Amino acid sequence: MSGSPNVSSVALGHAPGSLVYIGDREAETPVIDVIDYDDENYTERRVQDVKECKCYIGKPSVTWINICGLNEEIIAGIGEQFGFHPLLLEDILNTEQRPKMDEYEGYAFFILKMLTYDEEKEEIETEQVSLILNEDCVISFQEVEGDVFDPLRERLRSNKGILRKHGADYLAYSLIDAIVDYYFVILEKIGDDIEDLEDELLENPQRDTVETLHKKKRQMITLRKSIWPLREVISKLERGGTGFIEDTTRIYLRDLYDHTIQAMESVDTYRDLLTSMLDIYVNNVNNKMTEIMKVLTIVGTIFIPLTFISSVYGMNFEYMPELDWRLGYPLVWAIMILVSVVMLLYFRNKKWL
Amino acid sequence: MSGSPNVSSVALGHAPGSLVYIGDREAETPVIDVIDYDDENYTERRVQDVKECKCYIGKPSVTWINICGLNEEIIAGIGEQFGFHPLLLEDILNTEQRPKMDEYEGYAFFILKMLTYDEEKEEIETEQVSLILNEDCVISFQEVEGDVFDPLRERLRSNKGILRKHGADYLAYSLIDAIVDYYFVILEKIGDDIEDLEDELLENPQRDTVETLHKKKRQMITLRKSIWPLREVISKLERGGTGFIEDTTRIYLRDLYDHTIQAMESVDTYRDLLTSMLDIYVNNVNNKMTEIMKVLTIVGTIFIPLTFISSVYGMNFEYMPELDWRLGYPLVWAIMILVSVVMLLYFRNKKWL
Amino acid sequence: MSGSPNVSSVALGHAPGSLVYIGDREAETPVIDVIDYDDENYTERRVQDVKECKCYIGKPSVTWINICGLNEEIIAGIGEQFGFHPLLLEDILNTEQRPKMDEYEGYAFFILKMLTYDEEKEEIETEQVSLILNEDCVISFQEVEGDVFDPLRERLRSNKGILRKHGADYLAYSLIDAIVDYYFVILEKIGDDIEDLEDELLENPQRDTVETLHKKKRQMITLRKSIWPLREVISKLERGGTGFIEDTTRIYLRDLYDHTIQAMESVDTYRDLLTSMLDIYVNNVNNKMTEIMKVLTIVGTIFIPLTFISSVYGMNFEYMPELDWRLGYPLVWAIMILVSVVMLLYFRNKKWL
Amino acid sequence: MSGSPNVSSVALGHAPGSLVYIGDREAETPVIDVIDYDDENYTERRVQDVKECKCYIGKPSVTWINICGLNEEIIAGIGEQFGFHPLLLEDILNTEQRPKMDEYEGYAFFILKMLTYDEEKEEIETEQVSLILNEDCVISFQEVEGDVFDPLRERLRSNKGILRKHGADYLAYSLIDAIVDYYFVILEKIGDDIEDLEDELLENPQRDTVETLHKKKRQMITLRKSIWPLREVISKLERGGTGFIEDTTRIYLRDLYDHTIQAMESVDTYRDLLTSMLDIYVNNVNNKMTEIMKVLTIVGTIFIPLTFISSVYGMNFEYMPELDWRLGYPLVWAIMILVSVVMLLYFRNKKWL
Amino acid sequence: MSGSPNVSSVALGHAPGSLVYIGDREAETPVIDVIDYDDENYTERRVQDVKECKCYIGKPSVTWINICGLNEEIIAGIGEQFGFHPLLLEDILNTEQRPKMDEYEGYAFFILKMLTYDEEKEEIETEQVSLILNEDCVISFQEVEGDVFDPLRERLRSNKGILRKHGADYLAYSLIDAIVDYYFVILEKIGDDIEDLEDELLENPQRDTVETLHKKKRQMITLRKSIWPLREVISKLERGGTGFIEDTTRIYLRDLYDHTIQAMESVDTYRDLLTSMLDIYVNNVNNKMTEIMKVLTIVGTIFIPLTFISSVYGMNFEYMPELDWRLGYPLVWAIMILVSVVMLLYFRNKKWL
Repeated sequence: MSGSPNVSSVALGHAPGSLVYIGDREAETPVIDVIDYDDENYTERRVQDVKECKCYIGKPSVTWINICGLNEEIIAGIGEQFGFHPLLLEDILNTEQRPKMDEYEGYAFFILKMLTYDEEKEEIETEQVSLILNEDCVISFQEVEGDVFDPLRERLRSNKGILRKHGADYLAYSLIDAIVDYYFVILEKIGDDIEDLEDELLENPQRDTVETLHKKKRQMITLRKSIWPLREVISKLERGGTGFIEDTTRIYLRDLYDHTIQAMESVDTYRDLLTSMLDIYVNNVNNKMTEIMKVLTIVGTIFIPLTFISSVYGMNFEYMPELDWRLGYPLVWAIMILVSVVMLLYFRNKKWL
Repeated sequence: MSGSPNVSSVALGHAPGSLVYIGDREAETPVIDVIDYDDENYTERRVQDVKECKCYIGKPSVTWINICGLNEEIIAGIGEQFGFHPLLLEDILNTEQRPKMDEYEGYAFFILKMLTYDEEKEEIETEQVSLILNEDCVISFQEVEGDVFDPLRERLRSNKGILRKHGADYLAYSLIDAIVDYYFVILEKIGDDIEDLEDELLENPQRDTVETLHKKKRQMITLRKSIWPLREVISKLERGGTGFIEDTTRIYLRDLYDHTIQAMESVDTYRDLLTSMLDIYVNNVNNKMTEIMKVLTIVGTIFIPLTFISSVYGMNFEYMPELDWRLGYPLVWAIMILVSVVMLLYFRNKKWL
Repeated sequence: MSGSPNVSSVALGHAPGSLVYIGDREAETPVIDVIDYDDENYTERRVQDVKECKCYIGKPSVTWINICGLNEEIIAGIGEQFGFHPLLLEDILNTEQRPKMDEYEGYAFFILKMLTYDEEKEEIETEQVSLILNEDCVISFQEVEGDVFDPLRERLRSNKGILRKHGADYLAYSLIDAIVDYYFVILEKIGDDIEDLEDELLENPQRDTVETLHKKKRQMITLRKSIWPLREVISKLERGGTGFIEDTTRIYLRDLYDHTIQAMESVDTYRDLLTSMLDIYVNNVNNKMTEIMKVLTIVGTIFIPLTFISSVYGMNFEYMPELDWRLGYPLVWAIMILVSVVMLLYFRNKKWL
Repeated sequence: MSGSPNVSSVALGHAPGSLVYIGDREAETPVIDVIDYDDENYTERRVQDVKECKCYIGKPSVTWINICGLNEEIIAGIGEQFGFHPLLLEDILNTEQRPKMDEYEGYAFFILKMLTYDEEKEEIETEQVSLILNEDCVISFQEVEGDVFDPLRERLRSNKGILRKHGADYLAYSLIDAIVDYYFVILEKIGDDIEDLEDELLENPQRDTVETLHKKKRQMITLRKSIWPLREVISKLERGGTGFIEDTTRIYLRDLYDHTIQAMESVDTYRDLLTSMLDIYVNNVNNKMTEIMKVLTIVGTIFIPLTFISSVYGMNFEYMPELDWRLGYPLVWAIMILVSVVMLLYFRNKKWL
Repeated sequence: MSGSPNVSSVALGHAPGSLVYIGDREAETPVIDVIDYDDENYTERRVQDVKECKCYIGKPSVTWINICGLNEEIIAGIGEQFGFHPLLLEDILNTEQRPKMDEYEGYAFFILKMLTYDEEKEEIETEQVSLILNEDCVISFQEVEGDVFDPLRERLRSNKGILRKHGADYLAYSLIDAIVDYYFVILEKIGDDIEDLEDELLENPQRDTVETLHKKKRQMITLRKSIWPLREVISKLERGGTGFIEDTTRIYLRDLYDHTIQAMESVDTYRDLLTSMLDIYVNNVNNKMTEIMKVLTIVGTIFIPLTFISSVYGMNFEYMPELDWRLGYPLVWAIMILVSVVMLLYFRNKKWL
């Protein structure tokens, strides 16, 4: 049941703050990448131990720690190193969270949904991305290594754009922006699928077309659930009390906010479109039914009386005067043709022909 | 009528504040359990008389009084001992209340719905849990002895987690948290039922499938009615004017708030899913109907004219020249085969075959 | 048309504030009852003239004047005696008002809907009750003498509960509470009717079941219209600027507010239930249709071809070799049985049998 | 297309503030009536020129200038005389405005919809009424001379009620009140039409009943569009910053506000009623269909097999032993009767009979 | 798929603020028109280079720079000359934005949707118009050269109306007003189409009528998406913190706000109308089906039993006494006529005839 909601298996009986991974994906060997940069310098390292990250902190440069694979031990290590709240660590591991932003003393915490689209199965896959932003550092957590952040890394390396000229707040914005931009890619792909479906619907509706339409509608709900709370997250961040957001970044956040609204509108428009396609489909099915009934009615209504007439003269009574008439047989034919013509005229009059 | 709302039989003519038990369950012999703890000490006792509880109050340790079975006398005794408002006591006994939080001078009062799922009957059972929280004491009232709070008791006994390090406010949070966590268990079970139902629907829809779908939809309404007002309760508690909530607990309440939102979303998603399943079901029924009609139409439309033709030559007229033709009989067969072939081609053309 | 809204025949051309009775009930001879009480004394009198009420006013005791029967003269008299605003008096006489609360200088004015249920006709009857509350006096106006306030009178007489210990504000609360409590009685009765209807629907749906369902739905709208604005009234009263509400009463009002929400929820649940019953009904009708069609199709599809075969050998051609075959007749039977069996297997395969 | 919205043909290319009459009605010769009154004096005059109005302004008496027929020249004249904003004048001439209130320095401007009901065509006709209120003067603009304000004029002339004791604000209130009161007259008339329609629906549904139901639903939308924004207008006026509204009038405005809410509720109730009538109609049509199918099925299912049996013994095979049996014929009849009885029992069992 | 939402192909991997044109239209050779005016002077020039605009800035006269064709180079040039924020420039080029207003330090930025209606294809075409307003200058960007602003230019040239007497804020208002006025033109054209469609629907519904209805409904959604956010834009501008809006212009903006509300209402009314037309269509289709079934049922139910009767006497049994009766044949006819008459009376009784 692909469309069913993922009910969070909140660990029963565990104390709040216990670190238990909740999710579908096999925990892979986790990978920790550290990128440290300012406008002039750029370092990129894959570290083995969380403790190695520590040395980058407190320097004026911006540090981005990206952790792929949700390993309970590493998360606990990060928590210990940076002094994060245990509930925050629990949320990182529970991948059924909805997008949100929590402000803590000295850092802000984000949960986002990174979506990818499996074009073969025509299914949306959801991955939870968590971000922690403090003064000069962004820590990001992914379930699996993805390529959504790759263009960003490239821009960092090549010092293209203004990314390396701004602080950690702009980096966090850029990461969220990369995720939101990817929603549009998915919307475009689903849009293509819907277009195909529309052609199929008009030309050659299949047995499972309705199921596919409903599946698409459910995908829209999935998208909506990922995008809708994001609106609030970004708006909270823009207005935000967190002292980390510079005014220059705020303008970019406003722009990002507009993008999420735009994505929401596309989702709603697709939903309306799918509903309207379902209506058209149902109408077509009804029209077909009416047409089938019409054919049966016309054939039946014409031939049933005729058969009656001929069966009358198939009776074996001794005394049936008509049977001996010379013109009996042609007369019966005449009557039968007359009846048919009258019927046909009646049907034409009713516009059933 | 399992899905019908429970109309509170508010005692007519009784003055407000009269203590009358309103509910379905046979009042069992009530049981009073007192747990008194701080980080170092832990006492657990089953007392006979409400008055015995009194001695634990006013000490720096946290006291949890749990009362199972809504006995009017005991409730009245509690009210007298602690000086609670009569309306509060009336609310405890009226088990048709909706979840709410009332703040009184010196204590806060909560009504919650503890849900359990009878897997055999596939029905949700609702039990009302009331909590009173003051400075150093939590009093909880249950209709029957349940096991939802058992893991919590275990954590208290074994001093696992941070439970014994915090005050009564954290205990109250933990009790509400235990109830909310159990909603997810129920959602998961209902999710499984819905999954089974979906398979049944696609493969072998039964006569009562629609009734079951509607029953599930009504269960979603029950869940919604329990969870939705809880949101408000927790938010009120978090912001709350009550002086009992410490800042550290506030973070946990925010987390709990997120959980209720998440539960609400699951409920809504299931509801959408059930609606979409109903649509698919109706569509399948219509498709079946169309298919049945098609078969009748094809068979009828082909054979009714043929029968007419053969009945014509079953007439007993004296003068029917065709009957004496040598090739009359094969000719009629030829005509009949021709008619059938034309019909079949027409149907193929219409894509009804 | 019992479900049609009562359009207020606002007297056209009359100046605002004109006293004209607008309502369905024959104006009965009005009855004025005065109850004057404090914790120690209790007087109950039926007076003839409004002026006799005057003497109870201004004393520290609480006075309750109850007027049954909306007589224009008496209302005008009351208005004159107490100096009430003419619009208020007009509202009392116009029984098509929606529940509301208006605050005037020195007194507050309430319009409420008292509902009763005619179990024979299964119809809700609406009666408008108006209340005026000032410092030490409550004046209530009823269309007909009812028994909803009787338990209250009894409690006053017998000094049961805390009613006589509180002021006029608590009396007003008790009157509203009595009306709201009666809503639950009605909801329970309608609940029973709906339960009966549900059984009828599943076992033996009648021709008029759908009409009854829609009638019940309209009753829910009537209830909703009476209860929904009440929420606002009570909330306004609780927060209220009126200086008459003591803090102790405020807690009772909060409780009353919760009751109206609870009643609203029951109404909404019944409405959902009725909608879902309608859906089930429509589905059952469709299923029945499909089943009928199936029987016709199966019988028709099997026998129409067989009849064709036998009619072929009823033709009277001179040269029909099969007719002279010794095994012709059994052969035809064999063919016909074969055709039937093939058909039946096809239908079984299609799961129509 | 009577139900189609009137799209305002906002004059393209005209500068904002250009005075162009936009509306359906032939501009009649406009009529200007001036009524000047205080508690003691009353003057009523029909003037030819706008300038003659001027002399009444600035005196302590209240002046009511009523202009029937939207003549661009006269409106311009008024604008010049009193110094009104050009946009206001443009709004008066554009009769497709929605109800609104605009506050200008020194005067307030209202647009209202006066509705009348053409009982023959069963259609609602909309007329735009504009009001300008300043310190001591009300100017009203009507498209055609109507009689809705006549009772008001009568009350002014005869000094009935308190109208002449109050200022221009109370006059403005009375004009709006007269319009709102007329909504109830229309609602009552439509209510009667709906009642007739309901009877027709249950007893003898016509071909065009559904069209009429939809037409009525569209009328409800028209009413809603006229009444809904009025709510806001009155509430704005009541709270209003305009210094013209005295406190005594404010109470009347609150009452008027309640009336609009009441009218809205009637509209909504009628709409629900119409929807429910449509549902009942559709259900009746479906039931009829099912009944028709049932008759066809029963007759067909019984006689098609019987016809088959008799056609078997109409075959002309040489060797059909049954034909020579003495009891062959009665036996066939016995079989046929048996088959019919079994069929009928089956149908009774299925509750189709 | 004309109705599908345009998913913004936000350039993946591009840094925010990168200037990339996103849209369907072939970028034409861009055209820059500069109009500079005050009440006395008027200059109009087509410039080649953005830099030539510079000289008009800073003077007390109002400058309107209109750029047709979204050329990345020119936009960048404008940005450089005037120091606009890069995100703003990116928004101008991304033509899938929703209408919005962004306030920057020293200037305000608007995105609007200019709609045109292709009457042949019955399709709405959307063009994005961006406006930048600062102290004394308005810069507008169009995708293609349109004629919506032509009347405005004419008014400027001829100094008609008050346009040249006001500042840049009034010019910006006039531009938005021109766009909104054009919405009414489109609404009127669509209204005509809907009217035609309604006639077609009642008289001669075509196969594709439903598709057309749904297409029109989708156009309403497109209109809604263009108009709805505009409301917010204008309201923001009216209240706006931007120091550029003079109080006199504010009144015009309030008027414009009313116009957008009016346009929204027309859209909603059309949508309701289309929904109601769809309902009527579906009802007509169902009625037709019922009528067809009725004819089949009547003919079948009458003739199937008659055919059975005559087929009985077509049997070839040796001993069938009726066959030898003198009156056998007329008797059978009598029976058959009797059966038909009974049937017909039954049908008339059921009101199927």
